[in-house]
Amino acid sequence: MQYSKNFYQIRSNEIIFEAIKEESKTIGYYNLPLQDTTEIKEYAASIVKKDIAIIGIGGSTLGTIAIYDFLKKSNEYTKTLHFFESTDPIDIKSKLAKLDLEDTHFIVISKSGTTIETISIFKYLSSLITIDKSNCTVISEHDSKLTDYADKQSIKTFTIPKNVGGRFSVFSTVGLVPLSIIGVDIDILLSGAREVKDSFFDKGEEYEIIIKKARFLVENKNRFNINILFSYSSALEGFNKWYIQLWGESLGKRNINNTKQSHTPIGLIGPVDQHSFLQLIVEGKRDKTVTFIKINNFDDDTIIPSNTLDGFDDLEYINNLSFSKLIEAQANATIQAIQDLKDVPCDVITIEKVNEYNIAKLMYNYQLLTSCIGKFVQINTYDQPGVESGKIILKNKLKKGVK
Amino acid sequence: MQYSKNFYQIRSNEIIFEAIKEESKTIGYYNLPLQDTTEIKEYAASIVKKDIAIIGIGGSTLGTIAIYDFLKKSNEYTKTLHFFESTDPIDIKSKLAKLDLEDTHFIVISKSGTTIETISIFKYLSSLITIDKSNCTVISEHDSKLTDYADKQSIKTFTIPKNVGGRFSVFSTVGLVPLSIIGVDIDILLSGAREVKDSFFDKGEEYEIIIKKARFLVENKNRFNINILFSYSSALEGFNKWYIQLWGESLGKRNINNTKQSHTPIGLIGPVDQHSFLQLIVEGKRDKTVTFIKINNFDDDTIIPSNTLDGFDDLEYINNLSFSKLIEAQANATIQAIQDLKDVPCDVITIEKVNEYNIAKLMYNYQLLTSCIGKFVQINTYDQPGVESGKIILKNKLKKGVK
Repeated sequence: MQYSKNFYQIRSNEIIFEAIKEESKTIGYYNLPLQDTTEIKEYAASIVKKDIAIIGIGGSTLGTIAIYDFLKKSNEYTKTLHFFESTDPIDIKSKLAKLDLEDTHFIVISKSGTTIETISIFKYLSSLITIDKSNCTVISEHDSKLTDYADKQSIKTFTIPKNVGGRFSVFSTVGLVPLSIIGVDIDILLSGAREVKDSFFDKGEEYEIIIKKARFLVENKNRFNINILFSYSSALEGFNKWYIQLWGESLGKRNINNTKQSHTPIGLIGPVDQHSFLQLIVEGKRDKTVTFIKINNFDDDTIIPSNTLDGFDDLEYINNLSFSKLIEAQANATIQAIQDLKDVPCDVITIEKVNEYNIAKLMYNYQLLTSCIGKFVQINTYDQPGVESGKIILKNKLKKGVK
Repeated sequence: MQYSKNFYQIRSNEIIFEAIKEESKTIGYYNLPLQDTTEIKEYAASIVKKDIAIIGIGGSTLGTIAIYDFLKKSNEYTKTLHFFESTDPIDIKSKLAKLDLEDTHFIVISKSGTTIETISIFKYLSSLITIDKSNCTVISEHDSKLTDYADKQSIKTFTIPKNVGGRFSVFSTVGLVPLSIIGVDIDILLSGAREVKDSFFDKGEEYEIIIKKARFLVENKNRFNINILFSYSSALEGFNKWYIQLWGESLGKRNINNTKQSHTPIGLIGPVDQHSFLQLIVEGKRDKTVTFIKINNFDDDTIIPSNTLDGFDDLEYINNLSFSKLIEAQANATIQAIQDLKDVPCDVITIEKVNEYNIAKLMYNYQLLTSCIGKFVQINTYDQPGVESGKIILKNKLKKGVK
């Protein structure tokens, strides 16, 4: 008797753990927390220009934006990051208006080296100001056309390893070079990622959290096909966007059984989206899980004064409260309201403080979670074959001169 | 024989149309395009301060943000709108840093007049600078505590009609006052809304588009529970957020059969999200509909130069292209790639030009679409009972001094 099958079954946590251990030998992002950052830091210290314009899109920028968004409002960086991601002319013009081109250093980031948005914008900006070895850095694969070009022009290059995918590249040169240039402590950043990595591979707390969450999401993926990240701080807006790419591109795949899989990511910001999306979570169809992220300590000295407004005695309970306490209370109240529903799966991540260490922990945790879900549903977490057809259509249209 | 039922059936387009006509006699947003704007324009012209700080959240700000985001990068307004929506202390501080408080006019907007975020921020800002009739406008219901307070202080007030819900209030004083102050032509804005209204109620083109789309979405709501808006311009980011509130709060409801309904809204921006979410649409589960929005004419003079980069001969086809043409080609290529899948329902809205008229048409179209879907699924489109429990929990926590 012979037996073969083309369906898949959810495997044990132990099998997934072993598969991830095996995968970590070939998939590059796992070991990024262990890298030597000396060259990056030395180079970063040599950049004196005030405006840093990053030309890149998707995985080349989203991780950096996530960390920059998280840290920039609580830190006084002397340099400013600008992101040229879109071919939208309105966007390009409005970003240009914020730059002093003479005092701008350009970082061109493209893993493949031929990303159409990135090369178009690079060419356009090159027509406005000379971009050469004096004001440019290139980050790409070692053998890409972009790296070749930079080498010929003696422009400094950093390499993106072949086995590190764009959406898993935040802790590679892609994120570290620009962040180090503006003054983010990239060693502390990596130490946060390393702690999560160690805890996962040593089967510590992170392993328990991640493997159970991945398993739950996979077991219930047909009931709960939407995963909401409800982040209680506008500093997490960039993180939400990074999560959406990580989740969407990694998990929206055909599995080995050729069945279309998805966990659909949605990012919300509290308390603003209490006034937008919360109604849908509470009374809408039970097709959503919710992960809350809240920040415990905002370093906050903004106090709501005790001057009760004439006629507003009812609201006296907000007097003398800090906004930090108010937003925490709002997060807790919304969490409790969702938990009271009993039929909306929900978990809570608490960040102790806004700093490099904690955002890195959060991001590395989400990368591992994504890898585990991918293993459970038996897909290739690291490719994105679905975006190729659009690229081919575009190329053919443009070659024919059709819009 | 007696017969009664508690289930609902999808009714005919004609019944829905008649129900909407009936509803338009009592629901206030339908007739906003017909209002007299003289008082608003006169008052707006009297405001000379440079920074306009809007204190409000949800329906009090999202519509204004949508229109401002759409227009601001293509227009040179001499005044700047700032939105204080969140109790996030990081957000409040970073927004304050952009204001010249002495040269700021404050607009406090709250329909109920007791929105906790709005009152907290208003109180806090009042501790930094005197806010009185010389630098403040209040927009609220005529008999709210906020209007009472403003009246006592001789602060200018504008009224939000009781029968205009927050998320349907963009064409009321809520949107018109701040937009008129910075120089948006609110009469052109209203003329766009009026055109859509007339076309719908005269059973013209808008009726055909809206009623068929609403019907399709309702008939297939269990298969396609996720509705994606894929907007090809960063100028539509605010519109996406407004759509998410409109859709989420209006349609996330229990229907007359007490069954939980939802159409879950997601907003994407192209081409950036081609590098984030597109993979999920193409290879993920078929639980999504996609509406593309593209802009035909960007008033664009940014041309990708013909200086072929050494080694990039392959990409010569982008030479001499304007970014306007490139982003249009990207939108068309993505649309075709999605259409080629055959099993992802998709439609395309084309905007001729970035101006007041067109954004108003788009927004009024979406309000009517939301109302029609609400009628088809037999819910109350205009309330939001699901957000009350969290508010009560918060109030009780804060009164007890618990976070």
